Amino acid sequence: MDLKAIEKLKKNVYEANMLLPKNGLVIFTWGNVSEMDREAGLIGIKPSGVSYEDLRPEDIVVLDLSGRLVEGKMRASSDTATHLELYRAFPFLGGICHTHSRYATIFAQRKESILPFGTTHADYFHGAVPITRPLTAEEIADDYEQNTGKVIAECHPDPEGIPAVLVANHGPFTWGKNGKDAVHNATVLEEVALMALYCQGKDPVGSDILDKHYFRKHGANAYYGQ
Amino acid sequence: MDLKAIEKLKKNVYEANMLLPKNGLVIFTWGNVSEMDREAGLIGIKPSGVSYEDLRPEDIVVLDLSGRLVEGKMRASSDTATHLELYRAFPFLGGICHTHSRYATIFAQRKESILPFGTTHADYFHGAVPITRPLTAEEIADDYEQNTGKVIAECHPDPEGIPAVLVANHGPFTWGKNGKDAVHNATVLEEVALMALYCQGKDPVGSDILDKHYFRKHGANAYYGQ
Amino acid sequence: MDLKAIEKLKKNVYEANMLLPKNGLVIFTWGNVSEMDREAGLIGIKPSGVSYEDLRPEDIVVLDLSGRLVEGKMRASSDTATHLELYRAFPFLGGICHTHSRYATIFAQRKESILPFGTTHADYFHGAVPITRPLTAEEIADDYEQNTGKVIAECHPDPEGIPAVLVANHGPFTWGKNGKDAVHNATVLEEVALMALYCQGKDPVGSDILDKHYFRKHGANAYYGQ
Amino acid sequence: MDLKAIEKLKKNVYEANMLLPKNGLVIFTWGNVSEMDREAGLIGIKPSGVSYEDLRPEDIVVLDLSGRLVEGKMRASSDTATHLELYRAFPFLGGICHTHSRYATIFAQRKESILPFGTTHADYFHGAVPITRPLTAEEIADDYEQNTGKVIAECHPDPEGIPAVLVANHGPFTWGKNGKDAVHNATVLEEVALMALYCQGKDPVGSDILDKHYFRKHGANAYYGQ
Repeated sequence: MDLKAIEKLKKNVYEANMLLPKNGLVIFTWGNVSEMDREAGLIGIKPSGVSYEDLRPEDIVVLDLSGRLVEGKMRASSDTATHLELYRAFPFLGGICHTHSRYATIFAQRKESILPFGTTHADYFHGAVPITRPLTAEEIADDYEQNTGKVIAECHPDPEGIPAVLVANHGPFTWGKNGKDAVHNATVLEEVALMALYCQGKDPVGSDILDKHYFRKHGANAYYGQ
Repeated sequence: MDLKAIEKLKKNVYEANMLLPKNGLVIFTWGNVSEMDREAGLIGIKPSGVSYEDLRPEDIVVLDLSGRLVEGKMRASSDTATHLELYRAFPFLGGICHTHSRYATIFAQRKESILPFGTTHADYFHGAVPITRPLTAEEIADDYEQNTGKVIAECHPDPEGIPAVLVANHGPFTWGKNGKDAVHNATVLEEVALMALYCQGKDPVGSDILDKHYFRKHGANAYYGQ
Repeated sequence: MDLKAIEKLKKNVYEANMLLPKNGLVIFTWGNVSEMDREAGLIGIKPSGVSYEDLRPEDIVVLDLSGRLVEGKMRASSDTATHLELYRAFPFLGGICHTHSRYATIFAQRKESILPFGTTHADYFHGAVPITRPLTAEEIADDYEQNTGKVIAECHPDPEGIPAVLVANHGPFTWGKNGKDAVHNATVLEEVALMALYCQGKDPVGSDILDKHYFRKHGANAYYGQ
Repeated sequence: MDLKAIEKLKKNVYEANMLLPKNGLVIFTWGNVSEMDREAGLIGIKPSGVSYEDLRPEDIVVLDLSGRLVEGKMRASSDTATHLELYRAFPFLGGICHTHSRYATIFAQRKESILPFGTTHADYFHGAVPITRPLTAEEIADDYEQNTGKVIAECHPDPEGIPAVLVANHGPFTWGKNGKDAVHNATVLEEVALMALYCQGKDPVGSDILDKHYFRKHGANAYYGQ
């Protein structure tokens, strides 16, 4: 057992989770962030139902990709099976974030994708943020959380270029190269969602703007930042 | 007279009331929380018209279920008769919270119930948050506050599963196992109301999602939290 | 010259003005509060264009009801003539507040009164908050600020029962028994305006609710507060 | 090389940039402010992709009007070519600010100008805040940032009287006599945009109000302030 990897994972996951209330994305216990160390095959995730005021680094639960407990005394987030399904479906993922942030959740509840209405969106998401289909009664009754991961994977046209999704009736999941990056994308998504709400019915940007802004920040020809 | 029960009640009610401004649910004196110690038969409630900046634990007014003053030097909240009516009508209640929080009050003023548009709602409220009928001129003229409690009891299909109501033209009341729990539900209601406002006209969730999320957190088969 | 009255006025007006940024009603220099000592015949008002970060009690300008400078080294608020006109038109006034607070200003810009959609409104304003007619080109060209006061007085059906008005195209003025009370009413108006914006097209409350809540807090039979 | 001018520029540009998060206009790295010392022919601008938490005065990049690096170790903002184009097109400019502030960006994404619905607008902007045409695919492909400056200059009817513009699909640029003044105007624009969003479809103010309020604060006959 790689103790150093476990400690680092717990620290990272703790810090990423604490950004959720700081960035105004959650109240009470309404969110969870995980991070995966692909080399060690380990995932750290928030314990279920623990408030951000009470959360401590040692509370983080460490699992393997099959969901087997590696370390931790608390029960893992009730959404753990969704996280695990996404780490299996998208092998490039290093972190996942789930919130009920207001405006992204409004789109999830409306069962509408978030179209790219501007460069703020295009800087981070190379296309519309997709909405899943609603789960069937059977998918809800058994293995609900895992099935949530499955409908995400099923609907998503471009998980690398668009690190976010809206689960119908529920709320957003975002991801990234680690937990903090997933929270960063959740924060962006919330801003983009608020602005998109007041652009519904207008024309989204064309592929020229979408490409220009996305590739200004991503890929080999990026020229944004230091 | 149970002095220990009285002291505990005053402390609890004070702390629960102070969560209202902290959670952004009230300004000035626009809210009140009470708690009932069923065993002692005592209710503690905020004094009328005292601002949260000035409120102290010793200001909390203690009454019995008939409204008789047990302890306290101040006049009880002008909404006391509504609280008492609810404690009598719903014998499982341990705490009640009333606010004029913005988005829940908007629904009350629109005289519309809050439909369950997503899992955030379903996690706490097992169905639509109902709206009362408007009070009649007679009900307003005499015993207005007690009649407010009566129309709440009259309209409510499921006070245990849906610990909240909207009083038409007025605002929300929420309840719970104690005062802090009632404030927790008031905070949830405000988030849910804001998101529902932008989902008006859309389809609410079905009973499968409503049951899944509600019973994930409540009852014998709950598996959320520690 | 009543030095004690002047000192008290400057202190009161300073403190009332400082509540504007605290209550989220203004940015930069976008507001002004005055107070009148009716006995001394003196009015204190914020100096023009001074930011709330820089404002000090000694900056408050003291005038008489005709606008003659009594004390102060700075130029009085550019809206002073409006304040003076209102003190002359409504002899019961002890304080006036003007802001560009977001939601009240939206109604002013829409040229719509704020109807009483709920008890929050009725607790403070005994009827719709009226909107003035737009000023004519002549009224704008000469004595603009005084004419603003005149159209307020012209339009207002009940300045004692409804201590607020919306100046068309401009924003709200509120008043009260002193400067702080005027700011209190400005804060209430902003909350009420936000909630009313999402109730447009719905039925306002009837006179039974309007009377019940207004007279619960005002007049000989009030029973709210201590 | 004028070292004193460079130091002053770096300090001013740093301080102006730090007002962006303070005034709630940006998150992460979503904005940039520059200032030009016309006498020295030098421009200071925020480095690209540096967060406001990390930014220090010594990070500010100093350029000349052709874009040649004068001092600085970091790469200048990716929007630098837009700033330079505006300093060349509008020779009276002393500072420029670009943000993705929520409500101004909503108008940019809707591709709608912001009409003057009230005196808050007229106090700062002597007419509608214009929206650029969308850039063509060719303008996006090559010299995108410089072309952004060109379409701003192309569309703007009155850059001195209206120190702001909305770039279609993108967001606002504002300007002023220096960097802080440009940020001040960006803050005003955001307030004005929010209020205008809820006035869409209503009549804007006439030229009488527009002139009265604009010239109350600007030009030889201004009588606002000290």
